[in-house]
Amino acid sequence: MRILVLPILIATARLCMASDLSGGWIAQVSSFGDPQYSRATLRSDGAKLAGSWNEWKLEGDVSGERLEFSLHQPDGKLVGKLTGKIQSAEISGDGMLEQRAREGRREMQPVTWKMTRASKEPTGGPKTWDFEPKEFQHNYSAAIAPVLRIFPGDTVRTWTLDSGGLDSRRERRSAGGNPQTGPFYIEGALPGDTLAVKLNKVRPNRDTARSGSRINTRIVTPAYAIAAKYSERFDSEWKLDLAQGVATLSNPTERMKNYSVPILPMIGCLATAPASHQSFRSVDLGPFGGNMDYNWMGEGATLYLPVYQPGALFFLGDGHAAMGDGELTGAALETSLDVEFTVDLVRGFSTAYPRVENHDYLMSMGIAGSLADALQAATSQLADWMKSDYKLNDSEVALLLGTAIKYDIAEMVDPQYNVVAKVPKSALSGFK
Amino acid sequence: MRILVLPILIATARLCMASDLSGGWIAQVSSFGDPQYSRATLRSDGAKLAGSWNEWKLEGDVSGERLEFSLHQPDGKLVGKLTGKIQSAEISGDGMLEQRAREGRREMQPVTWKMTRASKEPTGGPKTWDFEPKEFQHNYSAAIAPVLRIFPGDTVRTWTLDSGGLDSRRERRSAGGNPQTGPFYIEGALPGDTLAVKLNKVRPNRDTARSGSRINTRIVTPAYAIAAKYSERFDSEWKLDLAQGVATLSNPTERMKNYSVPILPMIGCLATAPASHQSFRSVDLGPFGGNMDYNWMGEGATLYLPVYQPGALFFLGDGHAAMGDGELTGAALETSLDVEFTVDLVRGFSTAYPRVENHDYLMSMGIAGSLADALQAATSQLADWMKSDYKLNDSEVALLLGTAIKYDIAEMVDPQYNVVAKVPKSALSGFK
Amino acid sequence: MRILVLPILIATARLCMASDLSGGWIAQVSSFGDPQYSRATLRSDGAKLAGSWNEWKLEGDVSGERLEFSLHQPDGKLVGKLTGKIQSAEISGDGMLEQRAREGRREMQPVTWKMTRASKEPTGGPKTWDFEPKEFQHNYSAAIAPVLRIFPGDTVRTWTLDSGGLDSRRERRSAGGNPQTGPFYIEGALPGDTLAVKLNKVRPNRDTARSGSRINTRIVTPAYAIAAKYSERFDSEWKLDLAQGVATLSNPTERMKNYSVPILPMIGCLATAPASHQSFRSVDLGPFGGNMDYNWMGEGATLYLPVYQPGALFFLGDGHAAMGDGELTGAALETSLDVEFTVDLVRGFSTAYPRVENHDYLMSMGIAGSLADALQAATSQLADWMKSDYKLNDSEVALLLGTAIKYDIAEMVDPQYNVVAKVPKSALSGFK
Amino acid sequence: MRILVLPILIATARLCMASDLSGGWIAQVSSFGDPQYSRATLRSDGAKLAGSWNEWKLEGDVSGERLEFSLHQPDGKLVGKLTGKIQSAEISGDGMLEQRAREGRREMQPVTWKMTRASKEPTGGPKTWDFEPKEFQHNYSAAIAPVLRIFPGDTVRTWTLDSGGLDSRRERRSAGGNPQTGPFYIEGALPGDTLAVKLNKVRPNRDTARSGSRINTRIVTPAYAIAAKYSERFDSEWKLDLAQGVATLSNPTERMKNYSVPILPMIGCLATAPASHQSFRSVDLGPFGGNMDYNWMGEGATLYLPVYQPGALFFLGDGHAAMGDGELTGAALETSLDVEFTVDLVRGFSTAYPRVENHDYLMSMGIAGSLADALQAATSQLADWMKSDYKLNDSEVALLLGTAIKYDIAEMVDPQYNVVAKVPKSALSGFK
Repeated sequence: MRILVLPILIATARLCMASDLSGGWIAQVSSFGDPQYSRATLRSDGAKLAGSWNEWKLEGDVSGERLEFSLHQPDGKLVGKLTGKIQSAEISGDGMLEQRAREGRREMQPVTWKMTRASKEPTGGPKTWDFEPKEFQHNYSAAIAPVLRIFPGDTVRTWTLDSGGLDSRRERRSAGGNPQTGPFYIEGALPGDTLAVKLNKVRPNRDTARSGSRINTRIVTPAYAIAAKYSERFDSEWKLDLAQGVATLSNPTERMKNYSVPILPMIGCLATAPASHQSFRSVDLGPFGGNMDYNWMGEGATLYLPVYQPGALFFLGDGHAAMGDGELTGAALETSLDVEFTVDLVRGFSTAYPRVENHDYLMSMGIAGSLADALQAATSQLADWMKSDYKLNDSEVALLLGTAIKYDIAEMVDPQYNVVAKVPKSALSGFK
Repeated sequence: MRILVLPILIATARLCMASDLSGGWIAQVSSFGDPQYSRATLRSDGAKLAGSWNEWKLEGDVSGERLEFSLHQPDGKLVGKLTGKIQSAEISGDGMLEQRAREGRREMQPVTWKMTRASKEPTGGPKTWDFEPKEFQHNYSAAIAPVLRIFPGDTVRTWTLDSGGLDSRRERRSAGGNPQTGPFYIEGALPGDTLAVKLNKVRPNRDTARSGSRINTRIVTPAYAIAAKYSERFDSEWKLDLAQGVATLSNPTERMKNYSVPILPMIGCLATAPASHQSFRSVDLGPFGGNMDYNWMGEGATLYLPVYQPGALFFLGDGHAAMGDGELTGAALETSLDVEFTVDLVRGFSTAYPRVENHDYLMSMGIAGSLADALQAATSQLADWMKSDYKLNDSEVALLLGTAIKYDIAEMVDPQYNVVAKVPKSALSGFK
Repeated sequence: MRILVLPILIATARLCMASDLSGGWIAQVSSFGDPQYSRATLRSDGAKLAGSWNEWKLEGDVSGERLEFSLHQPDGKLVGKLTGKIQSAEISGDGMLEQRAREGRREMQPVTWKMTRASKEPTGGPKTWDFEPKEFQHNYSAAIAPVLRIFPGDTVRTWTLDSGGLDSRRERRSAGGNPQTGPFYIEGALPGDTLAVKLNKVRPNRDTARSGSRINTRIVTPAYAIAAKYSERFDSEWKLDLAQGVATLSNPTERMKNYSVPILPMIGCLATAPASHQSFRSVDLGPFGGNMDYNWMGEGATLYLPVYQPGALFFLGDGHAAMGDGELTGAALETSLDVEFTVDLVRGFSTAYPRVENHDYLMSMGIAGSLADALQAATSQLADWMKSDYKLNDSEVALLLGTAIKYDIAEMVDPQYNVVAKVPKSALSGFK
Repeated sequence: MRILVLPILIATARLCMASDLSGGWIAQVSSFGDPQYSRATLRSDGAKLAGSWNEWKLEGDVSGERLEFSLHQPDGKLVGKLTGKIQSAEISGDGMLEQRAREGRREMQPVTWKMTRASKEPTGGPKTWDFEPKEFQHNYSAAIAPVLRIFPGDTVRTWTLDSGGLDSRRERRSAGGNPQTGPFYIEGALPGDTLAVKLNKVRPNRDTARSGSRINTRIVTPAYAIAAKYSERFDSEWKLDLAQGVATLSNPTERMKNYSVPILPMIGCLATAPASHQSFRSVDLGPFGGNMDYNWMGEGATLYLPVYQPGALFFLGDGHAAMGDGELTGAALETSLDVEFTVDLVRGFSTAYPRVENHDYLMSMGIAGSLADALQAATSQLADWMKSDYKLNDSEVALLLGTAIKYDIAEMVDPQYNVVAKVPKSALSGFK
């Protein structure tokens, strides 16, 4: 008897659940290769199911723990037919879904899929977190477990080691090579979104820094590199006078006694986890950001990073008290930092490379294996930005950038080059 | 009788002349290949001859119209033995002189030589010339006859056509392709010197300009270039409001109605004649300057150009009312200019590429066939500048530039790239 | 009672073990950062311990389960003092060991360490394995579990999918993007070694292939790329006549009816796992090899790959029936392959990039983000090879390469460029 | 009386001349800028004038020494209206002619023009000239007077100095830097044509050569360049055993005693005069050829050079007994050569860069300021060649080159890079 009863109860429970399908879901589709993520919304009304799947329309039926539905483009074209089974916390199944095929064509292909409930933003509005890092990461990778889960709008106060692994008391806490604080999981972030990180505070938390004293051989002519005679033990330790905003050498040579550098703190590395199963060293950089070493990445800047993994997985590290363009010596004034940042999410929009915005400029990065390729990428992305955000055609953008573009060379000494193309906001004031 | 007498008189005249050898001379030495120039000073005291030949010591004898002398390095090493014959306005002869030989070694080699009197600076101090150009040049070459001979310290007021060959009344005066005003011959300038050109005035002399409306394909990704849809007849004529210092499109599209560009006049092309028998188009650039298209080459800037030919032969043209970095569209706001400049000479010192100085920066150009090579050249030359002028060693320079260097991308759309490495003068204030 | 006895027995067992310490060990040292591996040999004689640790001399004492020893350089300099505890299958402990510190200096630093027995080569000589792959990898990474453990000298017969994931019957077995067979774990391989892979057999195992029909935009001028009009559905499927060694289009256009390509099978991807926690996509390439796409990587070639991880972890895939230089269209004649290879190990020697050898040439790869950097790397490594293996000085190598070097452009369409510098063996015949 | 008679006679003479207008003419048109050349054919029948002007149709009237005519495109569109006056050996005048204007548009513009009789090929067929050079050129320039005027089909036997200026007896005849024999004026050659130069004989005319012993720093990594220790006085003189076809060092170091190089003579420099008033050093290279340093430019090769000046002005020099790819040391086995070549002309067709053909390959050069740009130019031009000569569309060419292209790196150490893209003739056998 009991044996018969139980399934009924379970079925009832499932029907109840079925009546609860309404709401936001994250759908994950797999065929061969990496899973793809979509945002779905379901509305269940008895046996009828309706809703959306990204920009597609979803229509179907629920019957007990089973459901089936079809997906149509806004123009009515059928792009998917899926069936599934409702389980405790997820729905999963298989079916046919339009996928990218050879040479850009799209075809219906067999897939498996599952849906889980979209995380709900907590009530009470954005939160501020004080995060005390314990471990430090040397890779950008989605294989690393997040240290904190936060929501769009939340603010994090934390700190970073210097590039050599020393903390605010100059104690070694990690191996060198740009150890990272994080990763932070941003609830609701999906591949194809953009993570916005506003840097509220970027301040050295100690009064020393260390820089390099040899120009990277990539940046000078071979003749210069061959002729250069560098001191074996040149002391490149700096004293940071944070009150005055000025750095001077701790033990200067005679000629450098009066040399001082304005302190302009910045973070060298800011990254999301790269796509798929890739894992890059924290000294590397790419479309996901990383060791971008851009000297305008300080207080007041907002960085836009492409999201490649659920939760984005945000890393940061490699603080600089000041840096010339291009990180000539392979090391800026390396120091540990107190950092406060606020995250936000641009859903369903993503760029090929990071973008930055501050009070004065819109900035677009190009990260590539040569200076020329990096510059092409930066210019093209800035042009695309102008086209989409200011509704300009190709000729108008050419005219605009031809008269207003500026370039910064951000990074030349790490595995990739980073060139920044920017346009002053003042030039854009006439457009809106 | 008279027949006998005449030679005597002539001989006497020549002896008189011989007693007049004292003073400054320009020596020109030829073996195989291009002539080399040196500055010599002679002091003749009866039959004794003494003086200098560049940094060498000259000693010898005069006998009638014949002279012979030897040259020694400051350390006493013999580096030349020459004989010559005095003629009306010059002395010429042959002998042995140390020359650069295979793989950097130096060897005594047979040469022919001649000396002419160094031009004397006119009394009365520097002059100001108003020069009205009649013809315009399309090449940088020493084969072109100078239009005006001026002295170091002199000032020239003149004007330039726009890059298309139109003058201040928009009348065609020449073919396009950056027609040049000049060349100006600077008395006393020799190969191995540096010509300093201070730009006192750089002003559009009309109220229109024309720019480009397509981004050069070198500067964008292939994907961008393929996708770009440019209007065939986009009107890129500009109205220059010189009083307000603002340029706007003459016939703007709807979206560009409120777009304005601050006027910041500059000269695209400034050049000396290149070395030897080379002749480059006026759109070209190189160690001699040329089409550098640097948007800080305006009023107040001083340009330092290597001298490769006697008289330097200074050209200028290609005025811009304003320009974004890199001359993205292959054309800035092209217009005709009124220009006033003052020349000066740094004798016996020369750099691999042009340098620039203004109120805020010391700037060093790198001009090469790729962006990477141009950047290396610019950085290396700036580093050498710091080493020599501020007496810094390699490590100190690395530290200085690693913290203070900035880059500008000046030119990317002409046969060579021009990258500018610069250091703010404020960073150098502690050194002197 | 029993309670007292047991420790004694265990101690006895451990002493027995201690008397068994003699033999080969793999030592793994950790401080901050990635572990370092060394080969150690121990000889225990009662309480005395002697042996080697890489090229260092090891001396110490064993006392029960405890041991301590010091390490000295051949010149007698102390470089390590370590203590440890013997456990069942390993010894572990801590101490001080010389490590690379800032700017190339070496310093004694605290470390932890452990030793495990070196794997012993099996008796009976090299083995031949028939390996049937079940899963396919899309990343080069040490995080992937090996599919087979083999010894130096062993031979493996296996097969690879085509780059699109299809097998010998053209059935999809994996997502595209160069799915890899492997990784194979080579017993005894340590970071710092070189893995030699001799390709005994590289043969298409089906009679079809597929290529590309658009030239990658990196390889043509922007003008060409903009003007190119490619057919949307050009059929680039090939018929492989393996008996005749010739490929022709399956459905040729009229003009291509008589076009045929000689079949010259090669493997596009051969890799070891990259260093540390890095993970690269199988379309990527680097010092570890990967998607090198070199058209001489076929039967008879021996590839030398740097080892970055214990066991090397060898991957292979991406078969080509034929390919022009540089993989112009981003796809060669992509097909599935039967492959037989024999592995060997060069212990304690490793190169910056892969090397290749065949009947005619010694070849050195340069893999970098630009063509120029790749060429520099390839030339430099080939020059170093000549210096070390043929005992030539820099001038002699310059003369040799200046007269005998040849270049191949292997790969231009993937994330890095691969340039091959090579010297014919005939040119080297006079040296040995 | 006589005074009146004379004009009549002259007029009569001119009328007679007018009746002789029939035949081939070279028209030279000037507006602003460089003159343009066209081939015209006139047929005069009394007062009627007909003929062609390049591909345009010419129609007009002759009246005494005056003529006027119009030019129409094949489709009937009027493209020119010109008037002129017949003088003794030429006709000159002015009028309106369609010219290239801003941004690729074509417009009727005022021009001046003149015509001179086309040179007639001599009767008796092609000639063979023995030319003994007296002077040697260090620039490629149309300002240099030709040393010999020859006709298409003619053959020249001459010789060249080595790159250092030494002749077959090792006597210095000129300064170094690739002194050139020539220029040769090819009758009938006009800008827009192609000069074909078949190399019948390329042989060292002495038994010594000299090479370099330092690798150019462009070609190795900075680390290699910094570490290299070159012997100051390494003796890189070679003995050429022309009978055996083998070169060995004259005074080898111990290790180089058995090192030998197969002799494969080639000419480093072959050039036409560059466009307009440009003048390049003989070590330079460009679209006009020059110092291309391609090691397949030996006997049996035919070189196709763009013509930029009337008469083409062909230069040659810089013989090599043998050379590795890229002229690594900045000098191959430099020697003097006996050369025999035959010239031909492809009228009205011209390429962006030189092309080469030999028994095995069609080869296309790309000459540019970076390796990447040179490779793009070479590939694109080879692709265009295949499209036009084998009537292939873009997809077919992609397929062909993707399977058959090979690259050679010809020149890396001079002001520009030269990359050669080539396709084996065997791959093209199916097309015709």
